Amino acid sequence: MLAVATCVALLGCLQAQKLQGHVSVILLGATGDLARKYLWQGLFQLYLDEAGQGHSFSFHGAALTATKQGQEVMAKVLESLSCPEDVAPSRCAELKDQFRRLSQYRQLKTSEDYVALSEGVEALVQQEGRREAGRLFYFSVPPFAYADIARNINSSCRPGPGAWLRVVLEKPFGHDHLSAQQLATELGSFFQEEEMYRVDHYLGKQAVAQILPFRDQNRKALDGLWNRHHVERVEIVMKETVDAEGRTSFYEEYGVIRDVLQNHLTEVLTLVAMELPYNASSAEAVLQHKLQAFRALRGLRRASAVLGQYRAYGAQGGRTGKARGLGGPRRSALGRHLCCPPVASGILVHMDNLRWEGVPFILMSGKALDERVGYVRILFKNRAFCAQSEKDWVTAQSPCLPQQIIFYIGHGELGTPAVLVSRSLFKPTLPSRSWKEVEGRPGLRLFGRPLSDYYAYSPVRERDAYSILISHIFHGRKDSFVTTENLLASWVFWTPLLDSLAREVPRLYPGGAENGHLLDFEFAGGQLAFCQQQVEQLVLGPGSAPMPSDFQVLRATYRESPLVAAWPEELIAKLASDIEATAVQAVRRFGQFHLALSGGSSPIVLFQQLATGHYGFPWAHTHLWLVDERCVPLWDPESNFQGLQTHLLQHVRVPYYNVHPMPVHLHQRLCAEQDRGAQAYAEQISALVTNSSFDLVLLGMGPDGHTASLFPQSPAGLDGEQLVVLTESPSKPYHRMSLSLPLINRARKVVVLVMGRLKRDITMLVSRVGHEPKKWPISGVLPGSGQLVWYMDYEAFLG
Amino acid sequence: MLAVATCVALLGCLQAQKLQGHVSVILLGATGDLARKYLWQGLFQLYLDEAGQGHSFSFHGAALTATKQGQEVMAKVLESLSCPEDVAPSRCAELKDQFRRLSQYRQLKTSEDYVALSEGVEALVQQEGRREAGRLFYFSVPPFAYADIARNINSSCRPGPGAWLRVVLEKPFGHDHLSAQQLATELGSFFQEEEMYRVDHYLGKQAVAQILPFRDQNRKALDGLWNRHHVERVEIVMKETVDAEGRTSFYEEYGVIRDVLQNHLTEVLTLVAMELPYNASSAEAVLQHKLQAFRALRGLRRASAVLGQYRAYGAQGGRTGKARGLGGPRRSALGRHLCCPPVASGILVHMDNLRWEGVPFILMSGKALDERVGYVRILFKNRAFCAQSEKDWVTAQSPCLPQQIIFYIGHGELGTPAVLVSRSLFKPTLPSRSWKEVEGRPGLRLFGRPLSDYYAYSPVRERDAYSILISHIFHGRKDSFVTTENLLASWVFWTPLLDSLAREVPRLYPGGAENGHLLDFEFAGGQLAFCQQQVEQLVLGPGSAPMPSDFQVLRATYRESPLVAAWPEELIAKLASDIEATAVQAVRRFGQFHLALSGGSSPIVLFQQLATGHYGFPWAHTHLWLVDERCVPLWDPESNFQGLQTHLLQHVRVPYYNVHPMPVHLHQRLCAEQDRGAQAYAEQISALVTNSSFDLVLLGMGPDGHTASLFPQSPAGLDGEQLVVLTESPSKPYHRMSLSLPLINRARKVVVLVMGRLKRDITMLVSRVGHEPKKWPISGVLPGSGQLVWYMDYEAFLG
Repeated sequence: MLAVATCVALLGCLQAQKLQGHVSVILLGATGDLARKYLWQGLFQLYLDEAGQGHSFSFHGAALTATKQGQEVMAKVLESLSCPEDVAPSRCAELKDQFRRLSQYRQLKTSEDYVALSEGVEALVQQEGRREAGRLFYFSVPPFAYADIARNINSSCRPGPGAWLRVVLEKPFGHDHLSAQQLATELGSFFQEEEMYRVDHYLGKQAVAQILPFRDQNRKALDGLWNRHHVERVEIVMKETVDAEGRTSFYEEYGVIRDVLQNHLTEVLTLVAMELPYNASSAEAVLQHKLQAFRALRGLRRASAVLGQYRAYGAQGGRTGKARGLGGPRRSALGRHLCCPPVASGILVHMDNLRWEGVPFILMSGKALDERVGYVRILFKNRAFCAQSEKDWVTAQSPCLPQQIIFYIGHGELGTPAVLVSRSLFKPTLPSRSWKEVEGRPGLRLFGRPLSDYYAYSPVRERDAYSILISHIFHGRKDSFVTTENLLASWVFWTPLLDSLAREVPRLYPGGAENGHLLDFEFAGGQLAFCQQQVEQLVLGPGSAPMPSDFQVLRATYRESPLVAAWPEELIAKLASDIEATAVQAVRRFGQFHLALSGGSSPIVLFQQLATGHYGFPWAHTHLWLVDERCVPLWDPESNFQGLQTHLLQHVRVPYYNVHPMPVHLHQRLCAEQDRGAQAYAEQISALVTNSSFDLVLLGMGPDGHTASLFPQSPAGLDGEQLVVLTESPSKPYHRMSLSLPLINRARKVVVLVMGRLKRDITMLVSRVGHEPKKWPISGVLPGSGQLVWYMDYEAFLG
Repeated sequence: MLAVATCVALLGCLQAQKLQGHVSVILLGATGDLARKYLWQGLFQLYLDEAGQGHSFSFHGAALTATKQGQEVMAKVLESLSCPEDVAPSRCAELKDQFRRLSQYRQLKTSEDYVALSEGVEALVQQEGRREAGRLFYFSVPPFAYADIARNINSSCRPGPGAWLRVVLEKPFGHDHLSAQQLATELGSFFQEEEMYRVDHYLGKQAVAQILPFRDQNRKALDGLWNRHHVERVEIVMKETVDAEGRTSFYEEYGVIRDVLQNHLTEVLTLVAMELPYNASSAEAVLQHKLQAFRALRGLRRASAVLGQYRAYGAQGGRTGKARGLGGPRRSALGRHLCCPPVASGILVHMDNLRWEGVPFILMSGKALDERVGYVRILFKNRAFCAQSEKDWVTAQSPCLPQQIIFYIGHGELGTPAVLVSRSLFKPTLPSRSWKEVEGRPGLRLFGRPLSDYYAYSPVRERDAYSILISHIFHGRKDSFVTTENLLASWVFWTPLLDSLAREVPRLYPGGAENGHLLDFEFAGGQLAFCQQQVEQLVLGPGSAPMPSDFQVLRATYRESPLVAAWPEELIAKLASDIEATAVQAVRRFGQFHLALSGGSSPIVLFQQLATGHYGFPWAHTHLWLVDERCVPLWDPESNFQGLQTHLLQHVRVPYYNVHPMPVHLHQRLCAEQDRGAQAYAEQISALVTNSSFDLVLLGMGPDGHTASLFPQSPAGLDGEQLVVLTESPSKPYHRMSLSLPLINRARKVVVLVMGRLKRDITMLVSRVGHEPKKWPISGVLPGSGQLVWYMDYEAFLG
């Protein structure tokens, strides 16, 4: 700061320095909120920082507002600018005056206006007798205005050769992958990638901007720690006390995930998770490594999120779960939240790479919470046993106290940005010119421990994120901004979750400290769930509606066979228990259990259930067979075996030679008749399974009445001698291998699992048809001397 | 208690009840320490509890001591017996008097003495006009006296038909597996298994005895929690403040592992870890499940333990690291601790079953520590994120506070046995007649939380372990005792560790609170290590003997290729690290790692090492190939694949389709030429491995110079075009499949692992021969453009 002040003080020093070119800054939307609150101040700071370094500047406020009116607004804003603390008031007035003289407002509406702007800048440069260094266009305007402005800049306002053009964009950058891509393509037709600076202002926050430098400067200490062996979890949190009042229309379309998680928290996540480039100050290397981190993110599922909405939201103009009772869900203008946009959300993120496999990254943000705070917390695993009684532990030595590193973004009880490192971990290195030790604050506890437990550093001078970013734009430091590739990678990650959440009803919370433990959530088996059970009334209004728990498990018959019906979770739990019981019994009687499994999504939930509980399952004596397979390599994500592998085999102990994938991929070919894969599988079955009679066959039922890979109107496998057949599916991949109906019907027990409302119609239909396997293959399932049991969830059964 | 007191008060009620038989209790070693301190009191309690239930009793103190002297000692002991708190002094004197009248001392030395004892009992029974119910012999004598006494009881003192014989034995039950087995065999020649009651008095401690009932009564809450998905760690701890003074000669032979860990803490471990039988009150089921838990214990290695010895131990007569300077390590009388017996130890135990895989069980015990306390602590994983600021957490609701269940065995700050359950976990059920809620103790913190955070229960009446066990003996509750099978299973588990620790120098500690963090230890990669680095002076005094660790890993050359030589454990550790490094590098460069592995015993140790550590190993991108295979089914114990399966595949996450067993078993035939298995394997290799060049091939060397399954004087596979060949072995099973020498020599890296003294001669020989693959196939291993590295242990290398 001293250096800046000195040189600004001696503006005469300009002459003594090498003359640099002229830089024009054009602030589009100069009279808007963001500009008034942050951007003008940031430009003033840029002027203070850089005016002494040889460049000359001009600042052009621009908007649609008429000239006179705009000038008035701008004059007021410039008047309210503030100087750094250490500048004397009189000096400050002088500096503001200088800045004011370099700044002017102009209306930018027509293409002529842009031409005039460009000519004005050129005249100014000529008048100064300098060359033009560059033009910076800051888009502080709504996205719908982007295209017009971009076209005008590109056609009329580019600087001449040798000078740079930088355009600065503010979010939202689309609302899903498609729209983000469209916007990016559009902008890409006007600007080069290196000309665009997409701002995520979190990247300008001091504690966030310190993440990579911290990792770089403390490489030696962190190298062994920054991985799944040592990190227990990472929390990336932005809590607010304010609510969405006045922004409900924005929240209707965007919700907290689009507003905060997709951008701010995800950017922070990548800074924590990315591989640290050898040269951490290379913007290119940083951006490349960041992109790799995006690509390692494991896809989110609906169960990766918990959603909340504070109770008063509806009264503030927002749409709530209650509204659904009155006319059902409405479709929003952009076709997104069908129900009620979440204003609080917790997300569980996992990364599929060697460094982070298995480590939970928890992202959390919300409004109307009990405190305003932002932080990134890396909690390390406690792998120590302390032989001495706890009361004698020495903070800086005890390996049993929590060990954590926190990038404290701001607010909260500490009140400043900070970097905290548990004393028992290591003493970190921070640049001493810009970070200083935090003074003691007796009584202050952070993350379970007194402040004195940490090495704690805060910035010597607190700086606003926009000031920092505007400086980075000026210096071309692209690693503080969101590239097109990274932006799209982020949307690729978030869009499927957003789609799948569109119909979810968030949990209601009262807001503030009253929330209690209502929003606490926990993860189990890769899924998130609120900790507190809450009786959520599905439909409000007079009278009481039936509750899920009222139904529990229902027993009935379907097609003259036993039917078990329940809500999905209970249904899967019941089925898993029943399979386990069958397995235990089979192993007790015959020494082994032959289980044939179908692919698809419902069985995956079952696999997960079997994998995470059921410790008594006799896996070592179980043979796993496939009911059907797609003609793709086994490692193809489409392969049924791949689902079995990922969700079951990886978690249990089935001997290798008890696993029997279908031989769809022989001699590097897929399901070639001449490779006789179906015959080979049939031979395997005959050799290992007594009477070719499986102990249990798990089937599904398609909306067209298919089961296994036996499809309507396709004769293969419906009758005859063949045990295993090649079949044709009406949908991709077309070629399949399947157990035949006669083989299935030899099983001791056949279970048909039917879930989801998409199955409702076929469930109704099949309940009425007779034995017509050629029209509805499922109707041909009728074990000769075995048992058939139907398992249906209420959505399939009741619609 | 009331019931007992009432009926003892009305001894007249005896006549009203059904007359049961007569029970004689013979306490051998009646004048010894244990008898005086606990056993007589336990027998008195038995009398108080049972005399009103219909049996009549006689108590016979016996020892080698002359009759008169013994009678005097016994009289004193009986005089000092105490009644339960709620018995009035006058009534107590009366009860003691009754007990005294039923008790007598007799010298038991010669076989005639035993005959006389038996006759005396028979006379008494006759005189009472009852039948004999049983005889209970309590061996409170040193183990060397067991055989003589047992022989005499068996030959002269068995009760008549219809009455039971129970003999009660006190530890030590041997000092390793062999001695325990010998002792068991000897006792087994005199007694039936069901007649023997081996006492581990920890099983009588109230909190320990409550573990299984607690698990049973809280099944519903625990079912989902009691497993690797939820348990973070289990700590089983017995700390003492006293030192070994006066017991150093015992410690010289036994050390803390034999004294406390092998028995008390291991028994507790099995109670926590065992599968809970459906009927938890069936002694037979409990003992069977316990045995299964023993069998699931993963073998301990030297690195599973940390050892300590307090500084004053030497001055108290014990042997320390210092003593070794004066004449080097002495061999103790029983040939055990060559150096200095540990008096404190931490052990990391893992269980190889689905329920507990990966959960650390930490066993810790020591003398001269900062407090006296015993407990079992089950700490649950924290899988929750609390949305609200910590200061507002509600103890009973917050899922973010530590969640734990503690069986507090005794002493410590709480001062009583107790069962503690975190309030945020669940409200436990305990039998309300025998357990009551602990009263609040403001300021008392246990395991990081105030006492008020727990549901805390302590026994309504504290009872001594021996009283409880004596009652269990009387009631034949064998599940509170150590069966021969369980005893031997425990020694099978502990003996290898004890053997490998015989040369270890423990860390010295000052004792008491001064220990600071010196004894804290942590686990990483399945190993334990003290947290604080300490420069340990290995050898004090003049002269120094080399230590195994002085050798460490030696680098040299062998047959002009690099040689790594070391003690077996270091060698395997080094090889595993080197393989991991090669794998990481290969995956980084090529995206995958092709590893070809040999069968045999040395690789199995390597597999175990790779399976239990090396979390950074890129298993998901590793392809596993076999170097050679025996022509047996894959599930045959002789199959090389079976070793790979058991010791490696079960523990790591290699995708199914990356595992490539040799196709020795096609069409239900073994290595039939016409099945073209060798060609199929070669095709697979060509298809998946670039240039058929494995990244790493692991070979062994046979005493005849064979490697892979390429044998001397058998031409197949030594040269030519074939990549995979069928060969003939001179030993069973004769038929083999093997990679050929030309294929092996295409690898980027070939590693030959040679271990054990049986390899010494061939190692010498091969060091001198040239390239003569027909005589010594191993001499033909010379990768064309790859690297060859030899790994030999000192026994193979130095003989």
